[in-house]
Amino acid sequence: MKIDIGIVGYGVVGNGTAKILEEKKELIKDKSGVEINLKKVFTRNWNKEFPFSLKEDQKAKSLEELLEDEDIKIIVELTGGIDFPYELLTKAIEKGKHIVTANKALLAEKGKDIFLKAEEKNIRIGFEAAVAGGIPIIRALREGLVANNIEKIYGILNGTTNYILTSMFKEGKDFQTALEEAKELGYAEADPTLDINGVDAGHKIAILASLSFGGFLNFSKIHIEGIENINLLDVELAKELGYTLKLLAIAKNQNGEAEVRVHPTFLPSDHPLAKVEGVFNAVMVEGDSVGETMFYGKGAGSLPTASAVVSDIVDIAKSISLGIGREIEITSMNWKHKDINLKKVSDFYTRYYLRFTVPDITGILAKIANVFAKYNISIAAVLQKETVLRYTQTENDKLVPLVILTHTASENNLQKAVKEIEDNKFTYEKTVLIRIEHEER
Amino acid sequence: MKIDIGIVGYGVVGNGTAKILEEKKELIKDKSGVEINLKKVFTRNWNKEFPFSLKEDQKAKSLEELLEDEDIKIIVELTGGIDFPYELLTKAIEKGKHIVTANKALLAEKGKDIFLKAEEKNIRIGFEAAVAGGIPIIRALREGLVANNIEKIYGILNGTTNYILTSMFKEGKDFQTALEEAKELGYAEADPTLDINGVDAGHKIAILASLSFGGFLNFSKIHIEGIENINLLDVELAKELGYTLKLLAIAKNQNGEAEVRVHPTFLPSDHPLAKVEGVFNAVMVEGDSVGETMFYGKGAGSLPTASAVVSDIVDIAKSISLGIGREIEITSMNWKHKDINLKKVSDFYTRYYLRFTVPDITGILAKIANVFAKYNISIAAVLQKETVLRYTQTENDKLVPLVILTHTASENNLQKAVKEIEDNKFTYEKTVLIRIEHEER
Repeated sequence: MKIDIGIVGYGVVGNGTAKILEEKKELIKDKSGVEINLKKVFTRNWNKEFPFSLKEDQKAKSLEELLEDEDIKIIVELTGGIDFPYELLTKAIEKGKHIVTANKALLAEKGKDIFLKAEEKNIRIGFEAAVAGGIPIIRALREGLVANNIEKIYGILNGTTNYILTSMFKEGKDFQTALEEAKELGYAEADPTLDINGVDAGHKIAILASLSFGGFLNFSKIHIEGIENINLLDVELAKELGYTLKLLAIAKNQNGEAEVRVHPTFLPSDHPLAKVEGVFNAVMVEGDSVGETMFYGKGAGSLPTASAVVSDIVDIAKSISLGIGREIEITSMNWKHKDINLKKVSDFYTRYYLRFTVPDITGILAKIANVFAKYNISIAAVLQKETVLRYTQTENDKLVPLVILTHTASENNLQKAVKEIEDNKFTYEKTVLIRIEHEER
Repeated sequence: MKIDIGIVGYGVVGNGTAKILEEKKELIKDKSGVEINLKKVFTRNWNKEFPFSLKEDQKAKSLEELLEDEDIKIIVELTGGIDFPYELLTKAIEKGKHIVTANKALLAEKGKDIFLKAEEKNIRIGFEAAVAGGIPIIRALREGLVANNIEKIYGILNGTTNYILTSMFKEGKDFQTALEEAKELGYAEADPTLDINGVDAGHKIAILASLSFGGFLNFSKIHIEGIENINLLDVELAKELGYTLKLLAIAKNQNGEAEVRVHPTFLPSDHPLAKVEGVFNAVMVEGDSVGETMFYGKGAGSLPTASAVVSDIVDIAKSISLGIGREIEITSMNWKHKDINLKKVSDFYTRYYLRFTVPDITGILAKIANVFAKYNISIAAVLQKETVLRYTQTENDKLVPLVILTHTASENNLQKAVKEIEDNKFTYEKTVLIRIEHEER
């Protein structure tokens, strides 16, 4: 059976999707029994050169050409931003067209609205490509792990930042140099803000958390930190202490409340995610039946992402060919039918790496340790280096890094302790605080 | 909607499956919309103690109670061996019952017959649990990676042998000690023959190869070597040379012919599979769109395997509830509708680690190198150790290990070279030959 589809947006992923659909028409038909016909593609500017060329009659001059075409059963949204695709998806749903999208920002920030509209109209939304590119993690959560309560899902969800951190860790480059190189190699966009500041990884973990825990959450409340202030010194100290520094996106289900956060994280160097290097992504899922599972692959790029887009197109086309819609889906985005509350940052409990900048004099460690004791924070390791960071103005005191690793502690208490240490001027610079993901037995 | 199912076989996986179905009835219903009712379980011996207890009316006295029960729509086969389950599945298919099985031996050795019968009767066969336990690799191949030609699929598919090799590699234990420990910890069965000799991994890679390459293959023709003769010395030399020794199952698609093999393998120690330790399994898939992806998790155990069994039950129950059968499946086992030819061992091209036992005298390396040159085999590295393995009877000559790593070479030529070296008595013991999986650029 032949199913007509339309693509909106003809950038890197759009080109890859068209290429796969045209060049692998037979493969897809052999495997799935359906023939996918790319009837129309819309982009605002057909004057550019495209890596994959379409036939003239596939190039739509307006969005309406797709939306009004009754043959087109699936709209594949591969644009960027939020407002335009939101309007597009709303219209497509009203027209009864199924949707495939790679737009993580849209789903994370307006997902509730979109999914509820789709539910009402029995419309399927495929979003495998929105998280971790070619890795079939959405399908794994929906179907493969259906017999599990997902207790924790976390991973490296942004290739740009992982490339930069890998290059800092392995080659000793500083952040700025590593970023420039990533741009030159095409691993960072001209404006990499949403990658660097953690928001892109935040969008993805929001989607994974919703699907894993069964409800929508308020994206704006998620705690997100980026890697823009990561100092090479901390990357090197991580290595010395047996850790690797990664930008982790973490979601835990804790008695019906979700703890969701994105931040630079120290991971023990023998942790499976610590070995995920360069532009690769990986997602670790902890289910109460299956235990620990990990999914690894390319999180971005034209063909890897298109591979995921096409898997959704085929899946939905197959159900259309059998006259069925959403009812075939196992594990909807909203399977608990209630919103998820997010835990406040101050309620987090985790381990911490803290780097203070202290004068090289006796007694300072004792003072700092006293503050920790006062707030009930247990110290796991201390490392004081002879490396002089700078001198105080009198040139009498050398300032050196004092690193403290804590056992699991309350974020609330930790922040109070840091404030007290800073207020008392035991440290000469803003404290570097990096969370450690390392379960204590 | 409620779907009745029956389980045959009440061992470790059967117990786990029943436990999940009973304890997670609500979770599964919330996620999938279907209620799975475990109506009957059959085992030959109800007198044993079981970790998960069934209600009396769930315990069937005969197989016929399940096969003749028209309410039961799915038969879950969790027995062992081949003949009994083959007969059971044949009967179930005739009765129009769908099937879920974890039986890799059956599918690898009699799969063609079973799948063709099922196709004829529009019966679904779920076999996620047959390969790599809880890891949803079958689903990934069927759906998530549908847009890919799978060029290579390989991995660590047997937890028992991986536990033993990890313990040899990391703790310097010899094979026998490591095996005994694995038995004590329940990671090896009382009779671990099929694990140790590679046949279990062979069954699994046969299934993955069929699904990836689209046709059935002749299991008896697959080249399988186990780890029973692995010497600690080679594990230690692997480490010294920057490799890890793993039992790899490998399938490559080469111009319509499949190269499928299971054997101890040297992997570069920075390869993602080299880090897979203990009883964990991992599968690496190379698709022409997605690139390299890896799936990692527990490959055995009651609940991890049951997690996969239940995912198939839910999937099939869902389609039954919608009145559809096999037609919903994307990527059947046999999607090219022709059998796959297996490449002969003598036609393999790969890299090799060879350990000769040579007298510590001048000229011996030259003699061996000459034989390699004669057969057009290029040497990549040589390592001769001072470690004395034993003395020849005259006690004049110390016998030492001489290790040669080759570049990619023809297996046919390699075997001829080794034979010539042995025939000429340049070496005093049977040559240790271990293949290296390390793509040369």
